Amino acid sequence: MKELIEPKEARQRIAENLPDIAAIDCPLDKCAGRILSEGIIADRPFPPFDRSMMDGFAIRAAEAKAGAIFNVTATAPAGATRIQNEEAPNSCVEIMTGATLPEGADTVVPYEETERIDKNQMRLVSDEPVVAGDFVHKKGSDFEADKALIQSGRSLGSREIAAAATCGYATLKVSKIPRIAIACSGDELVEITEQPGDHQIRKSNDACIETGLARIHIHAAERTHLPDEPEVTRERLTTLIAHNDFLILSGGISMGKKDFIPDLLDELGLRCHFHGIAQKPGKPMGYWTNEDCAVFALPGNPLSTLTCLHHYVIPAIQKAMGLESTSMATTVELTNSEKVRKDLTVFVPVTLGENSRATPCPPQNSGDLVRILQSDGYIVVPSGEASADEGKNYGFHPWH
Amino acid sequence: MKELIEPKEARQRIAENLPDIAAIDCPLDKCAGRILSEGIIADRPFPPFDRSMMDGFAIRAAEAKAGAIFNVTATAPAGATRIQNEEAPNSCVEIMTGATLPEGADTVVPYEETERIDKNQMRLVSDEPVVAGDFVHKKGSDFEADKALIQSGRSLGSREIAAAATCGYATLKVSKIPRIAIACSGDELVEITEQPGDHQIRKSNDACIETGLARIHIHAAERTHLPDEPEVTRERLTTLIAHNDFLILSGGISMGKKDFIPDLLDELGLRCHFHGIAQKPGKPMGYWTNEDCAVFALPGNPLSTLTCLHHYVIPAIQKAMGLESTSMATTVELTNSEKVRKDLTVFVPVTLGENSRATPCPPQNSGDLVRILQSDGYIVVPSGEASADEGKNYGFHPWH
Repeated sequence: MKELIEPKEARQRIAENLPDIAAIDCPLDKCAGRILSEGIIADRPFPPFDRSMMDGFAIRAAEAKAGAIFNVTATAPAGATRIQNEEAPNSCVEIMTGATLPEGADTVVPYEETERIDKNQMRLVSDEPVVAGDFVHKKGSDFEADKALIQSGRSLGSREIAAAATCGYATLKVSKIPRIAIACSGDELVEITEQPGDHQIRKSNDACIETGLARIHIHAAERTHLPDEPEVTRERLTTLIAHNDFLILSGGISMGKKDFIPDLLDELGLRCHFHGIAQKPGKPMGYWTNEDCAVFALPGNPLSTLTCLHHYVIPAIQKAMGLESTSMATTVELTNSEKVRKDLTVFVPVTLGENSRATPCPPQNSGDLVRILQSDGYIVVPSGEASADEGKNYGFHPWH
Repeated sequence: MKELIEPKEARQRIAENLPDIAAIDCPLDKCAGRILSEGIIADRPFPPFDRSMMDGFAIRAAEAKAGAIFNVTATAPAGATRIQNEEAPNSCVEIMTGATLPEGADTVVPYEETERIDKNQMRLVSDEPVVAGDFVHKKGSDFEADKALIQSGRSLGSREIAAAATCGYATLKVSKIPRIAIACSGDELVEITEQPGDHQIRKSNDACIETGLARIHIHAAERTHLPDEPEVTRERLTTLIAHNDFLILSGGISMGKKDFIPDLLDELGLRCHFHGIAQKPGKPMGYWTNEDCAVFALPGNPLSTLTCLHHYVIPAIQKAMGLESTSMATTVELTNSEKVRKDLTVFVPVTLGENSRATPCPPQNSGDLVRILQSDGYIVVPSGEASADEGKNYGFHPWH
């Protein structure tokens, strides 16, 4: 490890050294969770015509009085071309939700406020005042045409796709999913399907990272294992770095005898932006890049990998894909205090309760997956503070 | 519409009348966002052996004194079988994070607290007291073997998959993705790729529903359009109901002239559990089922479709898939008050700010997609209340 830097500085250095990710055209039904690379322009006003908001009758408000009788001269279903209202006094058009307001009418009265006399006549029965424009969704009242309805950098969900469809986009320009490889190291690791010896554990960090990314719709291209053999690892790293936009390493980067990966990355000509963050867990984390690839090196303890994935890797990949930070920021209030190391920034897992209250759920150590399963996310306690305090608010980061 | 029921009652009736969704075996790397159907059992204790938590030296704590010199008799890398410590006084083993504690040792001192004298000797330099068990992650201290580590009904993310991998699960029993069809109706709707006439709009609710589901990893099997023709619609509905677990309809269910879908569903022998909820937006929503299929009928206004999707459809599908409701409940505090209709439950879109504070972002009408794009989710104001009040807390439901 080099000199420890602060978490904020680490995020900053990563953000300033990210690979470029290209934009592609993506069919609308494959866009869920993608990041928009080019704004969505309204091709028509919102709504595009004076639109009835209720099922009922289109009238002129000036003629509306409780008990007034109207002649029903036509029916306007949704999807029909605009019809001409009769000029004759107290004429009206039966109209459906979504239909175009007839020319000459200015207001819709819902069925509930009327009584049908016969096929050709209806009576207003409500004595609520009728105001011109009632239940009419006025053309252009929500948004003008030819303006950007959605800016680039936004994550695409149900609402954005509805807006894109309305504006006639069958495809959207979105960020490509970067090519991502995940590589774990450690000779104590065996495959999931193997029965580990007493001194061994099964590989889990790679599946953890892959799933965390998949939860936000980013699919990793490759998962592999690096043996504790410098020569083999050097070759494998060379290939992985040449073929991927991001390489996420877990394990082999600490001070141990077999932690030769940092030296290898230096030797392979990558630039080290930092190696060591003043945080717990995850202190030995490092970040290297060359022109093609960004390499996150995460400590191999399960909690370190999980925390660094959420606090650094996921935000970095999303930023490289163009995601603008959103206003979405959830804060929680702690139900009880928890002592922490004062000299480091500490990520404290918490369990969410009612009313945005959260209870610290500290792991016994950075290998403690069991406690982590009981938590919903983590809070950040900055260095210089000796405890996370009851009643105080902290930004909440959910686990993916 | 029939008699209006309360939203809570509507959710209850849906929950009591859901189709059965089978369980399947799913490879671990395809499990992100799936619902676990069968608990995950720990096949070994957590951790499975006395595990070193640091890089350093394994010693006997009783022999630790500042300045004490130890003979380094062996090296214990992670993944090596357990080694035998020398019985000789002040012997130690150099040990790596993740390695098995040697027999005879009870404690690990990190490199940082030692000084290497030569290849065979090291000295303790820290005068911090050394306590037996320091930096040793004791076998079984996190969790016993043969107990359920994760219960069924849980949504699978990075942590659950890490735990499953650790326990040797190459596949998990998860709920099948139900077969879901989405069908919109309304003759005012044209395809995304068409140029609509002045009286027409492009289809967007189907893409909205499909994307909302995809954001939670549920992929709809089919998307179709129903014309405003009862005979054609009857045939199409018959097929859709026969082939799907869920059918989500948008439009054609209100009081309009062409809103014949409710009658058709009755005629096709489905049971109507309700048609009409005392809520805004989405009042005309209905729910029908037969033995094979559950039919959600949502009003066609964009905001009605969006809100009913989030408040009823998504929770129902997740419940049918076995999701147990989680403790995750976010609450927001309103920054300003907003008048609402007192006789209905009102869903008010809100924009999230700092510290879990939210600002009402009421749409001008239920076709107002523009305002909805500015909101992050919605709060629920129960009937009987004439306003959502500044400073009061409300449950927050994010848009997907």
